[in-house]
Amino acid sequence: LNQELMEVRDQVTLLLKAQQTEQVAGLLAAVHPADLAELLKEFDPSERAMILAQLPAELAAETISEMEPEDQVALLRALGRERAGHILQQMSVDDVADLVGELPPDQARSLLQWMDREDAADVQELLEFPPDSAGGLMTTEYIAVPASMSVQSVIEELRRLAPDVETPYYVYVVNEQNQLVGVLSLRDLIITNPETPVREIMRTQVVSVRLLDDQEQVARIVSRYNLLAVPVVDDAGRLRGIVTADDVMDVMEEEATEDIYRAAGVGEEEQDLDPYGHIWEAIRSRLPWLLGLLFLSMISGKVIEHFNNLMAAAGALSFFITTMAGGSGNAATQSLTVVVRGLGTGEIQPSQVLRVLWREVRVGLVVGAVCGLVIGLIGLIVHHNLLVGVIAGLALFVNLTLAKAAGALVPFLMVSLGLDPAVASGPFIATITDTTSMLIYFNIAAAVLRHAGLQ
Amino acid sequence: LNQELMEVRDQVTLLLKAQQTEQVAGLLAAVHPADLAELLKEFDPSERAMILAQLPAELAAETISEMEPEDQVALLRALGRERAGHILQQMSVDDVADLVGELPPDQARSLLQWMDREDAADVQELLEFPPDSAGGLMTTEYIAVPASMSVQSVIEELRRLAPDVETPYYVYVVNEQNQLVGVLSLRDLIITNPETPVREIMRTQVVSVRLLDDQEQVARIVSRYNLLAVPVVDDAGRLRGIVTADDVMDVMEEEATEDIYRAAGVGEEEQDLDPYGHIWEAIRSRLPWLLGLLFLSMISGKVIEHFNNLMAAAGALSFFITTMAGGSGNAATQSLTVVVRGLGTGEIQPSQVLRVLWREVRVGLVVGAVCGLVIGLIGLIVHHNLLVGVIAGLALFVNLTLAKAAGALVPFLMVSLGLDPAVASGPFIATITDTTSMLIYFNIAAAVLRHAGLQ
Repeated sequence: LNQELMEVRDQVTLLLKAQQTEQVAGLLAAVHPADLAELLKEFDPSERAMILAQLPAELAAETISEMEPEDQVALLRALGRERAGHILQQMSVDDVADLVGELPPDQARSLLQWMDREDAADVQELLEFPPDSAGGLMTTEYIAVPASMSVQSVIEELRRLAPDVETPYYVYVVNEQNQLVGVLSLRDLIITNPETPVREIMRTQVVSVRLLDDQEQVARIVSRYNLLAVPVVDDAGRLRGIVTADDVMDVMEEEATEDIYRAAGVGEEEQDLDPYGHIWEAIRSRLPWLLGLLFLSMISGKVIEHFNNLMAAAGALSFFITTMAGGSGNAATQSLTVVVRGLGTGEIQPSQVLRVLWREVRVGLVVGAVCGLVIGLIGLIVHHNLLVGVIAGLALFVNLTLAKAAGALVPFLMVSLGLDPAVASGPFIATITDTTSMLIYFNIAAAVLRHAGLQ
Repeated sequence: LNQELMEVRDQVTLLLKAQQTEQVAGLLAAVHPADLAELLKEFDPSERAMILAQLPAELAAETISEMEPEDQVALLRALGRERAGHILQQMSVDDVADLVGELPPDQARSLLQWMDREDAADVQELLEFPPDSAGGLMTTEYIAVPASMSVQSVIEELRRLAPDVETPYYVYVVNEQNQLVGVLSLRDLIITNPETPVREIMRTQVVSVRLLDDQEQVARIVSRYNLLAVPVVDDAGRLRGIVTADDVMDVMEEEATEDIYRAAGVGEEEQDLDPYGHIWEAIRSRLPWLLGLLFLSMISGKVIEHFNNLMAAAGALSFFITTMAGGSGNAATQSLTVVVRGLGTGEIQPSQVLRVLWREVRVGLVVGAVCGLVIGLIGLIVHHNLLVGVIAGLALFVNLTLAKAAGALVPFLMVSLGLDPAVASGPFIATITDTTSMLIYFNIAAAVLRHAGLQ
């Protein structure tokens, strides 16, 4: 809450205490719905309902649209059937669908009964599509006109639909089969002679997405073509809805968080959790990763234990364990992160595996040589022992080069297996390279010491 | 490149070979500028210039706007002063400013001389702001009208400005001092009686940003309030430009990549590199991190070496080194990632450090207890030794709890020092916890063994 909102909160608190609830409406009339939603979080459920009951239905609907699903449902219940039905009616169809989609089937059904038949049917249609598809993301509140219509008639149509279609981004042009054939902007309407048929001013190259396209793909297209909204068509090319830029921004934030969480071994479900809230879901999201990696780490533990005698004979070897394991993990994480992000944003094509691998191997050879030289010198200086320096330097060189190659390859491998490459980043690849780096390190050490006649 | 674009590329290649360059224009007229920019990457610089020379200046300008800075400059040079000047004239002022901003001062000056005086002055004005501020991001191509103007006159103004202001998102209303006093959408214009003065239909609660606001802040506001564009005002409240949703999407992608790269110890400059290209800049972006962490890792190496005798006496201890170090790093990374992301998206407030710490400590106690129990049992089973199980279990419990606390605290600490908390994630925190976990593990081992009379 910023300063301004905190003052509003305190004033509302005072009004509620003084039981002057009817004055709340005037105080909140000028507050943006997104701010109102945040403000309401500061009050307990019964107070929220009292406050919302004072607001005009449209403002109340916009405010509820900005809230978290659990809070939405609790609030609608507290408001009672009549008022809640009124508010649901005022919300965007896609926002209602998102809300209803979070409910168990029986609650969803009862909520839909509070709405008009027609609107409820629209909501139900949207619910048929997966929530992370274009169909699940779209709204059915758009404007479509036939190509023969004049600009003047389109403007009249806009006036007629004004209460339902609040933010027309574009006007879409369809044929008799409702297939998308063109698009025009509101600016085109304003600057054109009213007699002109839209056919003459529409653009016919329309970028669109399919109903089942993944939301990440939809976001990429809207961002790539700098659109305010993208039309969604079915397999027959019929216009079914639009996805708007503001929903795309939410998707971009959600997908970025998902990638960041996955790379850290945090379940994506933790996105929806209150960061100050209960711990059980956080534990459920993190414990499986920790336990899985714990078991995986025992392979490298076994490798180290296997070389206990070697370490006892050459004590300096233990000094480099964390440098080998850590360095390899870090080098692999760097390459893997660049490749995973490149695949995610589309800058790297899945077919370019060899070019990417070749680049990362060359990077690995150089950083491996530099780091190997540094650690070799340190081995020599700290332990006054040339052999230790040679072992550490050589092993780190091999390890870093291999780590870079693995970091480049693993994401492509995951993509070809149909898995999200982000899952492999960070802790996962680091735990894997723990084992390989220990194997390489101790085997090089054994070979060098044997060669020098010391083992 | 998708299938369709690959076919276009092959056709263009054939036309260039047959020296029928004039037919290229017809072939490319229907291709979107964003696709054209990607298509041009497939050709060498001289071919790019040949192709672009065939396109209408507007399409050429939009295509160049979608390209990378180095490619833009090379192409403009190859096209020659007259044609390049013509194209620069057609580009958005903010796109030209982005391009010019990447050039050394003398080249920038010569490029600006290819433009109209007035446009060049606009570009120079934008260049005064940092590239990642609202001022650096905004365009000056917007429509502002006085509050007394009638809807009809605004529509005429839109017609007059149509060639320069290609996508009017909103119409802004200003007073005589050019201070922002209201906003209307194009829809408001269309559905209102032409005689009405805009004062009567404008919204007076206008969300705006300041010239020097950080781009991340701008993106958060546009996304939060579901805007298509946000006005940028100076300290006196005067309207200076607008930032559009498409630029905000680019910022969101850029900021997400930056966070992801930082968390993996990859320099943010690697964002602008060709993922298949030269390796030297990649090496420069990654080597400092690897070397820094390498030196840091030697502290934990020293700890392990210090306990060489203990390991020689109780060989099973070496088995758990990677589990301790890896597990602590993973647990810390999880907490740190959730907190860093929460601070980044604004879901966590910097003032809530104690609430977050308390939550993560409780999570740490539970996951520490579970993982400690599991590893303790494994120690007991694998090594048939109760003491080893007790040591490993106890140490992992303490380590995971501390790691969660550290992961929660470090980002707040970095924020209060004015640093980006993302820098601390992943490899950095893992390298730190390597040392603490080894210290705790071996000290617990020494204490337990001493207590049991074995040391």
